Amino acid sequence: MPAFPFTAIVAQEEMKRALLIAAVDPSVGGVLVFGDRGTGKSTAIRALAALLPKIRAVVDCPYSCAPESPAAECPHCARGRGKSHLIPVPVVDLPLGATEDRVVGALDLERALTRGEKAFEPGLLARANRGFLYIDEVNLLEDHLVDLLLDVAASGVNTVEREGLSLRHPARFVLVGSGNPEEGELRPQLLDRFGLACEVTTPTDIPTRIEVVRRRDAYERDRDGFCAGHAKAEKALQKTILSARERLDAVTVPDTALEDAARLCLALGTDGLRGELTLMRTARALAALDGAEAVTTAHLRQVAPSALRHRLRRNPLDESGSTARVARAVEEVLGAG
Amino acid sequence: MPAFPFTAIVAQEEMKRALLIAAVDPSVGGVLVFGDRGTGKSTAIRALAALLPKIRAVVDCPYSCAPESPAAECPHCARGRGKSHLIPVPVVDLPLGATEDRVVGALDLERALTRGEKAFEPGLLARANRGFLYIDEVNLLEDHLVDLLLDVAASGVNTVEREGLSLRHPARFVLVGSGNPEEGELRPQLLDRFGLACEVTTPTDIPTRIEVVRRRDAYERDRDGFCAGHAKAEKALQKTILSARERLDAVTVPDTALEDAARLCLALGTDGLRGELTLMRTARALAALDGAEAVTTAHLRQVAPSALRHRLRRNPLDESGSTARVARAVEEVLGAG
Amino acid sequence: MPAFPFTAIVAQEEMKRALLIAAVDPSVGGVLVFGDRGTGKSTAIRALAALLPKIRAVVDCPYSCAPESPAAECPHCARGRGKSHLIPVPVVDLPLGATEDRVVGALDLERALTRGEKAFEPGLLARANRGFLYIDEVNLLEDHLVDLLLDVAASGVNTVEREGLSLRHPARFVLVGSGNPEEGELRPQLLDRFGLACEVTTPTDIPTRIEVVRRRDAYERDRDGFCAGHAKAEKALQKTILSARERLDAVTVPDTALEDAARLCLALGTDGLRGELTLMRTARALAALDGAEAVTTAHLRQVAPSALRHRLRRNPLDESGSTARVARAVEEVLGAG
Amino acid sequence: MPAFPFTAIVAQEEMKRALLIAAVDPSVGGVLVFGDRGTGKSTAIRALAALLPKIRAVVDCPYSCAPESPAAECPHCARGRGKSHLIPVPVVDLPLGATEDRVVGALDLERALTRGEKAFEPGLLARANRGFLYIDEVNLLEDHLVDLLLDVAASGVNTVEREGLSLRHPARFVLVGSGNPEEGELRPQLLDRFGLACEVTTPTDIPTRIEVVRRRDAYERDRDGFCAGHAKAEKALQKTILSARERLDAVTVPDTALEDAARLCLALGTDGLRGELTLMRTARALAALDGAEAVTTAHLRQVAPSALRHRLRRNPLDESGSTARVARAVEEVLGAG
Amino acid sequence: MPAFPFTAIVAQEEMKRALLIAAVDPSVGGVLVFGDRGTGKSTAIRALAALLPKIRAVVDCPYSCAPESPAAECPHCARGRGKSHLIPVPVVDLPLGATEDRVVGALDLERALTRGEKAFEPGLLARANRGFLYIDEVNLLEDHLVDLLLDVAASGVNTVEREGLSLRHPARFVLVGSGNPEEGELRPQLLDRFGLACEVTTPTDIPTRIEVVRRRDAYERDRDGFCAGHAKAEKALQKTILSARERLDAVTVPDTALEDAARLCLALGTDGLRGELTLMRTARALAALDGAEAVTTAHLRQVAPSALRHRLRRNPLDESGSTARVARAVEEVLGAG
Amino acid sequence: MPAFPFTAIVAQEEMKRALLIAAVDPSVGGVLVFGDRGTGKSTAIRALAALLPKIRAVVDCPYSCAPESPAAECPHCARGRGKSHLIPVPVVDLPLGATEDRVVGALDLERALTRGEKAFEPGLLARANRGFLYIDEVNLLEDHLVDLLLDVAASGVNTVEREGLSLRHPARFVLVGSGNPEEGELRPQLLDRFGLACEVTTPTDIPTRIEVVRRRDAYERDRDGFCAGHAKAEKALQKTILSARERLDAVTVPDTALEDAARLCLALGTDGLRGELTLMRTARALAALDGAEAVTTAHLRQVAPSALRHRLRRNPLDESGSTARVARAVEEVLGAG
Repeated sequence: MPAFPFTAIVAQEEMKRALLIAAVDPSVGGVLVFGDRGTGKSTAIRALAALLPKIRAVVDCPYSCAPESPAAECPHCARGRGKSHLIPVPVVDLPLGATEDRVVGALDLERALTRGEKAFEPGLLARANRGFLYIDEVNLLEDHLVDLLLDVAASGVNTVEREGLSLRHPARFVLVGSGNPEEGELRPQLLDRFGLACEVTTPTDIPTRIEVVRRRDAYERDRDGFCAGHAKAEKALQKTILSARERLDAVTVPDTALEDAARLCLALGTDGLRGELTLMRTARALAALDGAEAVTTAHLRQVAPSALRHRLRRNPLDESGSTARVARAVEEVLGAG
Repeated sequence: MPAFPFTAIVAQEEMKRALLIAAVDPSVGGVLVFGDRGTGKSTAIRALAALLPKIRAVVDCPYSCAPESPAAECPHCARGRGKSHLIPVPVVDLPLGATEDRVVGALDLERALTRGEKAFEPGLLARANRGFLYIDEVNLLEDHLVDLLLDVAASGVNTVEREGLSLRHPARFVLVGSGNPEEGELRPQLLDRFGLACEVTTPTDIPTRIEVVRRRDAYERDRDGFCAGHAKAEKALQKTILSARERLDAVTVPDTALEDAARLCLALGTDGLRGELTLMRTARALAALDGAEAVTTAHLRQVAPSALRHRLRRNPLDESGSTARVARAVEEVLGAG
Repeated sequence: MPAFPFTAIVAQEEMKRALLIAAVDPSVGGVLVFGDRGTGKSTAIRALAALLPKIRAVVDCPYSCAPESPAAECPHCARGRGKSHLIPVPVVDLPLGATEDRVVGALDLERALTRGEKAFEPGLLARANRGFLYIDEVNLLEDHLVDLLLDVAASGVNTVEREGLSLRHPARFVLVGSGNPEEGELRPQLLDRFGLACEVTTPTDIPTRIEVVRRRDAYERDRDGFCAGHAKAEKALQKTILSARERLDAVTVPDTALEDAARLCLALGTDGLRGELTLMRTARALAALDGAEAVTTAHLRQVAPSALRHRLRRNPLDESGSTARVARAVEEVLGAG
Repeated sequence: MPAFPFTAIVAQEEMKRALLIAAVDPSVGGVLVFGDRGTGKSTAIRALAALLPKIRAVVDCPYSCAPESPAAECPHCARGRGKSHLIPVPVVDLPLGATEDRVVGALDLERALTRGEKAFEPGLLARANRGFLYIDEVNLLEDHLVDLLLDVAASGVNTVEREGLSLRHPARFVLVGSGNPEEGELRPQLLDRFGLACEVTTPTDIPTRIEVVRRRDAYERDRDGFCAGHAKAEKALQKTILSARERLDAVTVPDTALEDAARLCLALGTDGLRGELTLMRTARALAALDGAEAVTTAHLRQVAPSALRHRLRRNPLDESGSTARVARAVEEVLGAG
Repeated sequence: MPAFPFTAIVAQEEMKRALLIAAVDPSVGGVLVFGDRGTGKSTAIRALAALLPKIRAVVDCPYSCAPESPAAECPHCARGRGKSHLIPVPVVDLPLGATEDRVVGALDLERALTRGEKAFEPGLLARANRGFLYIDEVNLLEDHLVDLLLDVAASGVNTVEREGLSLRHPARFVLVGSGNPEEGELRPQLLDRFGLACEVTTPTDIPTRIEVVRRRDAYERDRDGFCAGHAKAEKALQKTILSARERLDAVTVPDTALEDAARLCLALGTDGLRGELTLMRTARALAALDGAEAVTTAHLRQVAPSALRHRLRRNPLDESGSTARVARAVEEVLGAG
Repeated sequence: MPAFPFTAIVAQEEMKRALLIAAVDPSVGGVLVFGDRGTGKSTAIRALAALLPKIRAVVDCPYSCAPESPAAECPHCARGRGKSHLIPVPVVDLPLGATEDRVVGALDLERALTRGEKAFEPGLLARANRGFLYIDEVNLLEDHLVDLLLDVAASGVNTVEREGLSLRHPARFVLVGSGNPEEGELRPQLLDRFGLACEVTTPTDIPTRIEVVRRRDAYERDRDGFCAGHAKAEKALQKTILSARERLDAVTVPDTALEDAARLCLALGTDGLRGELTLMRTARALAALDGAEAVTTAHLRQVAPSALRHRLRRNPLDESGSTARVARAVEEVLGAG
């Protein structure tokens, strides 16, 4: 059943840009998408996954290691290397109510009972390696599980210490969480560890709304036909991503950009330096997508809202929302643009 | 023991219409019925199930797959196809206190213990495939279970990640929940994911009340005789449903109808676009039941209350109930009708 | 050890009438008895059980099916029919702290462990089939268990979905609950599903009190002698019950009675139509006990308090108790009597 | 290690009388002792147990059945009768944190695991049969366990429905609970089911206090010597108890006494008739201890505080304590004495 | 690793005296030490343990019974007596998070699984027999565990009723608890059951503080050397304790002392008579340590604070602390001293 | 993957000094680092670990004992000594959600099930012996686990009493906890048991911020190259630490320093004497790092904030922060410096 095409998504530019940036440079950290319900958040992440080219993976490796460079931590590939094949980019949904042992992995009870061996049964983190891990309503997940997912996403390694098991395996993935701020927010400590945060809202102009409904209905009544109509645009976007990945290391970050980033964060009073690191990396990835050779003020201006809005302290004297505060700081520090 | 006939139900027109629409196009999403206790909510859903014709299913398939088109996700039919037989449309009650493992399915302990195999024992979601899943007092169910049921109902697939099991199986059903708003409401996030929501109230005119009591008593004292008296009406309604299903794809939705739906939702300030999608689909199914060739304003006007009343934000300045607010918006946007 | 005779119970006429009605027509629904502690609630139900004649049951059937008409759902009798014998009407106490699996039935662990078979071990609901299930302090039971018991009592079938078991068995019984309203009430949703509700109070005239104490002491010092003294009265009451059961279907309910019932419920503003259904059935059973051929206003007047007092909404403007409100409505609607 | 002699207990007359009454007629129901800490509550019950003569019991019967009249419910003696021997009156302490399965009895895991049999392992209720069950700080016990203990104490039978076990065994014992009202009271529903309730307080005159301390010290420094000094008094008291037991059935309760009891309870507004039943039985046992042939007003006057003080409703207009209110009613109804 | 010497502890005279008294007469009951953190509470109890001479114990007896007088309740020594050896006085720490089964003892799972036997595995209470049981932060322990420990400490017997086990074993030990009143107090019911309660505070004069720090540092840098420097003082104190134990029974308590104790408790309004009993025993042990032949007012005056301060009721009209209230009562009753 | 070099960390002097002090003298107790998120707390501890030279350990000893002086408590080395090898200083992360049994060690289930033996499976405390145990967000850990970790860190021994296991093993490590005071503080009782507490804040001057971001980016793009650039500085710092360790015992603490420490603590009103002990030890380690022969006022002044700020009582009259209060006391007591 083909996914809804990424290029057929109407509006929601900020979310689409953030997902493309994470596809180019996963080290920018996870993406948090929050906003109204029914605005296509889960559709977008599934669409992005379908857009990316297949990857080559070692057959039978539960972590889908790349044959040319298996992860140092892979317990499977450490035992020797076998054949490889092409697989789609893994996209793992964290189903509601999944238990910690299914996420992290657990003792393989079948082998324990039948053969008396203490073997590891990989979990969802293993399956997400080299792909995406999607959590709908991340704000409803228990804090310690979000924490654990952020830890693993940041280090790229899943450290298992449970049930007498003690091992590490590769788990490099982009964490994408969606949430509704009305249902209880994530605590600041967790928010800050997501790389990017975008807002999605219901479009308010009638033609856009009709277009969304029409496309959705067309897709659901004839999925293959609808996708065929967007195949060319999908292919073009895929090429843009792949070429941005290749060019990423060559994109330079001038000192003025670093200073702009620092001044922006100081003006907003973000804690620590994660804001600046993310600004720099995100702007670099955007420059790569744009085909630019260096990061410019324009890039910073575009990514600043997603990179910073979730890192602001509450300011009791300033009732305006995070997005407005970031916009104001961008104007003051970077100029009107 | 024959069920109370659908056509013998006195009054409660909105609920009956919503159930018929869901029977014609299950993709409109679940139906939520709320209101006074003792108003025949559970009778109606059982009656609808009894009204529908039997379906042809693969023998032994725990998901009752159709022999001509087994579900892509069916682990049973994937292993080859066997004989088929006619079975009644499945109607599954979620009994109070049913555990998550009985709903979702679980490890088959008997086989695990006796044969050392890790086999899946399908649960209630498996049994509900191609039919109805009924939850009485859905507002008393734990949020995460409602969420899970809505997820499965929306995707038509049950994804199992527990006890070392990892599989998917088809689970296409219409979710019908009944509830009493006095006993605590569902949170907005869940409400919004039900397709239709109807209110039922106790009739207040004496002849209607006497008629209800009289029919109920007649039915309970002689079930077969009572049902025989309504057999013809039942057969006619069944035909109406089947022909509406066939005609559904041919019913057109004019642009003016889409625009009306969008303006209605904008006027009411519903989040996201689920309201418009549901309005469009519901009106189309109603048109099909009516034998019409295109959706008209009259169809939208009839389905708007059920499709929208559970998607309104609380408005502290407007104390009138959801139903009144939808009615007012319908009058403003679609005219007095 | 012979039970205290029903006919030796001093005063408490309303409770005795309600229990006799339920013995004649179990379909009136459960009986809830609430009031002061130490007023003989549990004595009465045990007395009624001892009063009823023995029933003929299939030997070894865990559900005590009648040999001439085994329940359609009986998994035992479905396998063929054996001998039968006479047994006392089952009376099952729900002991405090009984677990849900003992109530509902559970996996037979012994057979599971020794023979590797997944067999069902019937619970208290099985044992109560064709008899009474008594719950002392029903208001202290967990809501979900009360709900489950009311579900089973209403449908006459116990549906088991747990521990990999999935079966149905007959469970037709009269549910009798006693409670003390000072210790927390049942929620309205549950109250409404009991057929009848009676109040018992401590008698306040000294001769009655002395008579109660004297009879209790006489009974405890010489149970057999005391019972012998009431044997004749017991036999006579048993005959009255049996003949009422036979005559029940022949008792007519005139339209005026139905209209009176509807007007009474409208006047009291009860939700739904359970009030009217219960009034009609209860009055019919009382008429049968009285030897009457049709329900009269006098019958309605007698049963109205028990049938309606637990279905009233709280009225903040009317501080009088439920019993007084029903009495007032009866006087207004049915006349002073 | 010999217990502190009952006859060496200084003061605390009400508690001692209540315990003696329960020793003569266990059917008066449990005894609740509440008051200051450190006032010898647990010493007294241990002393009473040591005072009673040994009983003859069937060897190996886990319920210590009497050989001449084994309990009808005894699963052991039902299988045939063996030898008998003399044993001390059982006194069972409910240790803090004892689990429900140790109290009630449970599946014998050893036999289940080694022989695959589902056998019953009797608990503390079995061991307490024909003796005393003592609960220190009964107000700290969970309500449902107190309830269960009162149920069993009242019926003399322990009904076990758990872990697939279903059996009954004799459990006739006097329940003695001690508690400190400052640490949370028992709920009225439970209080009312104790037969007697006495208050103990710290003596306030110095010679009594010195005497208590001196006796305690003497006992602890030379237990055997101290007990020898009270052996004669103990023997005499034992005879009084045994003769009272024999004479109990012959003691008459005149109608005036019953009327006095009823008027006393009416004056105090106790719920139900447990107050009168207890007054009558307690006064009869006291008369038997006194060697009297009939209950007199004097007997009622003596036992009224213990029999009634825990059955009063809180009266917001009367701030005086329960004991004072009973005393006032006794004076009004029975005269100044 | 040698413990810090008891005689090297600077200041904290009240705590040291209380511990010595408990070492002379364990029947005074447990010792509760509360006050500022970092004041050497846990050092002192370890020091006392190291000071006492080794005891002779039966080899392999899990309860370390004395060979000449094994405990009546010892299940091990009841089976015959073996060799004996010298062992240090047991000092058992209750580690944070120790489970009830490790404290009380539990089913020996290894033997249950491998040999199918139901054997008892002794817990910390067994190991503490004849020694000390130390609980740091006793106020953070669950109430029921404190209760259980106090019960066992008072009776000298551990009664086990769990997991199908039913046995008693000797458990005579001095319970020492330390706590910080700022972190939540013990409830009065538990407080009252500790024999002695002392306060420790941080010294406020600089030379004392320097001396404490200097000694601690000296000890940690050269434990053996430091201990050698205090060996003589340790030996002398050990002799004092041993001779006090021998002389204890010979110390007399004159009637005037008993009366003084009673008047002191009356003046303070302590509940029950535990205050007087403890005063008498504690003063006697102190007299024995002093080498006196009879208890004098001076002894009472010294021990009154430790024996009584935790038994006062809160007096809303008297805001002064417990220690001050005891001191005032001592002055009024015993004179200025 | 080489760690970020310790000497490449920009600013954060107090944290770096505290970690170096703990590396020189682990007996100063754990280090608590709190402050803004994203300030490199976890980077620093990993950097310190990488800086220290490898240690020689017994092969197969789960506690990594030193071959020349195995810990007295080592159950492995007690059985005889084998070969040794060089291993990196252990650094153990306490992963979020690690269970108590993985921390403390537990029954080895595999051996228990397959061989019926009760063997110990060492946990994280075992692995941390002779190294570091790092807890991120220590304030989110359960109190009893923090308590347990502090206990073990202070005694150097892990006492296991669970699952029928009873053993001790060496567990000497430096506990490093990081936390964010905004997310709930540790309770004072726990705070006080950490040796040192430092604050880290986000640098506010732009050149520093840019330098941090630049180094981080340089490191992540070419880890080996970046580390090579700091290898010389790392080697030099390692030498400084090793020589300080050797010289530590020779550093003297003059009486004036002890008196200064006492006066500082008195001025701040810290409870107990842990403050003075830590001041003395910390100043001594700092002197050793500085190459000084005796502790001077300057040393005390430098370490006072880290050694004391977490030991202050809240002063309602003094709203200034802990750091300011310590600074003021230092100025008053030690002079302006």
